[in-house]
Amino acid sequence: MKFQIKNWPIEAGRPIAILNHEDAKDLGLYVSDRVEISYDGASTVALIDTTKSFVSEGVIAVSKEVVDILGVKVGNEVELHRTLRPQSVDYIKKKIRGEALLASELKVIVQDIVANNLSDVELSAFVTAGYINGYNMDEVVGLTNSMVETGQQIDFGDNIVDKHCIGGVAGNRTTMIIVPIIAAAGLTIPKTSSRAITSPAGTADTMEVLAKVEFNIDELKDIVDTVGGCVIWGGSLNLAPADDKIIRVEYPLSLDPQGQVLASVMAKKKSVGSDYVLVDIPMGKGAKVADNEAAGQLAKQFIELGKRLNIYVECLITDGTAPIGAGIGPALEARDCLLVLDNKGPSDLMNKSLDLAGVLLELSGSVKRNHGRSAAEKLLASGKAKKKMLEIIEAQGGNPSVKPDDIKLGEKKHTIKADCKGRIRYIDNKKISLVARAAGAPKDKSAGVYLHVNVGDCVKAGDPLFTIYSKANGKIDEAIKMVEKLQPINIGGVILDTLT
Amino acid sequence: MKFQIKNWPIEAGRPIAILNHEDAKDLGLYVSDRVEISYDGASTVALIDTTKSFVSEGVIAVSKEVVDILGVKVGNEVELHRTLRPQSVDYIKKKIRGEALLASELKVIVQDIVANNLSDVELSAFVTAGYINGYNMDEVVGLTNSMVETGQQIDFGDNIVDKHCIGGVAGNRTTMIIVPIIAAAGLTIPKTSSRAITSPAGTADTMEVLAKVEFNIDELKDIVDTVGGCVIWGGSLNLAPADDKIIRVEYPLSLDPQGQVLASVMAKKKSVGSDYVLVDIPMGKGAKVADNEAAGQLAKQFIELGKRLNIYVECLITDGTAPIGAGIGPALEARDCLLVLDNKGPSDLMNKSLDLAGVLLELSGSVKRNHGRSAAEKLLASGKAKKKMLEIIEAQGGNPSVKPDDIKLGEKKHTIKADCKGRIRYIDNKKISLVARAAGAPKDKSAGVYLHVNVGDCVKAGDPLFTIYSKANGKIDEAIKMVEKLQPINIGGVILDTLT
Repeated sequence: MKFQIKNWPIEAGRPIAILNHEDAKDLGLYVSDRVEISYDGASTVALIDTTKSFVSEGVIAVSKEVVDILGVKVGNEVELHRTLRPQSVDYIKKKIRGEALLASELKVIVQDIVANNLSDVELSAFVTAGYINGYNMDEVVGLTNSMVETGQQIDFGDNIVDKHCIGGVAGNRTTMIIVPIIAAAGLTIPKTSSRAITSPAGTADTMEVLAKVEFNIDELKDIVDTVGGCVIWGGSLNLAPADDKIIRVEYPLSLDPQGQVLASVMAKKKSVGSDYVLVDIPMGKGAKVADNEAAGQLAKQFIELGKRLNIYVECLITDGTAPIGAGIGPALEARDCLLVLDNKGPSDLMNKSLDLAGVLLELSGSVKRNHGRSAAEKLLASGKAKKKMLEIIEAQGGNPSVKPDDIKLGEKKHTIKADCKGRIRYIDNKKISLVARAAGAPKDKSAGVYLHVNVGDCVKAGDPLFTIYSKANGKIDEAIKMVEKLQPINIGGVILDTLT
Repeated sequence: MKFQIKNWPIEAGRPIAILNHEDAKDLGLYVSDRVEISYDGASTVALIDTTKSFVSEGVIAVSKEVVDILGVKVGNEVELHRTLRPQSVDYIKKKIRGEALLASELKVIVQDIVANNLSDVELSAFVTAGYINGYNMDEVVGLTNSMVETGQQIDFGDNIVDKHCIGGVAGNRTTMIIVPIIAAAGLTIPKTSSRAITSPAGTADTMEVLAKVEFNIDELKDIVDTVGGCVIWGGSLNLAPADDKIIRVEYPLSLDPQGQVLASVMAKKKSVGSDYVLVDIPMGKGAKVADNEAAGQLAKQFIELGKRLNIYVECLITDGTAPIGAGIGPALEARDCLLVLDNKGPSDLMNKSLDLAGVLLELSGSVKRNHGRSAAEKLLASGKAKKKMLEIIEAQGGNPSVKPDDIKLGEKKHTIKADCKGRIRYIDNKKISLVARAAGAPKDKSAGVYLHVNVGDCVKAGDPLFTIYSKANGKIDEAIKMVEKLQPINIGGVILDTLT
């Protein structure tokens, strides 16, 4: 059946065709059925939507994605044919029925995800079924390889070192200290990082305070060839692109099926050819992983998956009960990192970074077991790590003589003080992050929270607990409201939890 | 934050707001987050979508649903505030975690479904989780009551009789014979039926050959008050409207979680105040229910749910292995029904209808046990049922002197003949339905298939098996191609199944 194209300039994120209700009835088509649209030798498959008024009979509106593929213009006539739903939907149904999927079936699903061939309904069913029914290790390996193969892969040579943190801890910007230490040791560490979604800063946001973080592959290879390491945003490189599309569906449900998390992390490592990967698993109340058992189980999965992918993985279970470092927010965290590289700055951030860097030096075989930490300390204390960081900053287009004090913090600030005497019992990661976000982070890079205290410190009434920074007074007010509502820092309490 | 309205005339099916990517970033909003949009005292919650080009900064595009609620015009300025996701999403997550939902929680979900407050991602997660984790009877009761309460309810008085068939059998238009028999017996049977989605005819499509089927509630009450029964389309009455919105998500996945099927059927019965309901469960190879065990389990659930809703339910397990009646397609089925009411027509359709009507007469207490079938026969043989059907047709605006031969069948036809001698082994419900759909049914009411044979009949090569009707030659050709591909009728075969 032939239809004339009507203008519809919406980016729907996938090929969509809108038909009049009556035309759809004629063709026996329902919302979410699929048609093949052909024009001048080219064709694409689109999902059907119907309307009673927006499009009249004989006319079809298509999304930008269809226009881009077919090169059609308003008034052109296209040919429509009903097509079957893609095979991936049958495989999703197989997962819904609780059966394990073959690597070949997962590949078909991932290919369709990357090509935007699945509707939100289908994608959500896939994520939900994966969450409820779980994935066995064969499936996780299949999922990971499919994610790698459907994206960009970069060859940085041999003995590539990498790290990953599963997140959930405020501050905790170890990457920007570990990368220069490892690169200063002569190893190659092409670190790709993410931007914040629900947190006040991702590593990419923080690095962006000091240098550019968006590069194409040729630029990236140049940087890594020249200085041995980088801290860049992975999002522009098309590494394992299925992941972002899956996250878009996981986000509104805040679901993270473990098999998909494992696959997504390791696919990105595999895509840059990592040989040695350290995974930081913060654990404890308020962290993503609550207890030893869950942490151990997750670590086992990472290690096993690494083996199956020919990547040597070591996992460190770390204290995830409180923020690491003093700054929370891009500029404040970047300043902490520079201070640590100057052998100043928050000692918890310095110590955690040295521990992790030490293990990385050991597992890559560059330093003997039990000598990693001291080797890392030496690279930091000698200033070699700082020098390397300035080289990386320069390679990424930043100012190679940047100093901690050069970093611009929010001009508006407000300090929250202790209202009683006592010992700091906890600093809640999620709550303090929400305060930093309320202040404007990560969009306002100068916004965030600077902690004056650590868990265990003794304070008296009136002592400063933390300072809120922002470029706007309104945001400071919102952050103060958030503090009053959430009470992110607890002084001297003995109550562990209140059950209702 | 204030935004100016840009024109965007799309019916998105729910309130949607499209922001420029940069504005969304400023507000910390991601795709599928929610905002409250306020204008001139009115406000509504909309789902966020983002764009890099379609909407520029400071401008917002909203779907027709937002325009309808707020009464905004292009150029008006609206106020945006981030809101939390609705509580129903937390309850959907509870179901995903495998926990049972409370009636109050199901009600919140159903309310949000009816109000179009849930995205496709959320709705699909609900359906998928319901399919995988199932519902206990308390949940099914809660779901049913929520569906009833969020829709229209109609009071037709006491002793209301109703029937339902779970479907899957071609032809099988017993409703249009049972309703007049039951109404002729002096009982009230306000039958609401559906239109075809994947079949070549729904009861509403078939009745529409003889009379109107779309009425508002006042008209419907008039009809039922006057003639004691009706056969109308339920879709325009807003009975249990959650159901259609759930089906929209189930359809692309062809999922039908049993708990939701039970709730959807019984909610519609409860909404019209049914006291006695007969459920026809066709069983056997090719039917929706494959064996005795599955049929028995489903029947038990229907009966138990009925008890909990104060509806007396009886289930009949019937032969679902082959079509019932000779016609498949609206006009052909309508003609079969009129013929049966004239004491002619296909004997399988007549017998099944008499059996079901007999049981309905018994379970409503209008006739003693074991006397239902003979009472139904008497009402049919005496012409009382036919007379009642003509009254119903008249009440619904049709021609009260319609005769079977008045019904217009497709002018183009083609008869498929036996290519060998043998006994008719099976007539596949799904395949013969696809042939009728290829011929144009249900949109072309005159299209379909007329069966000249029944399972068990002996034929010789060249004997007519079935005739395809359509108004268009092209559709006849498509139907013939479908016959060649699917081979819907099997003659003399001994092979039950081929496994690959």
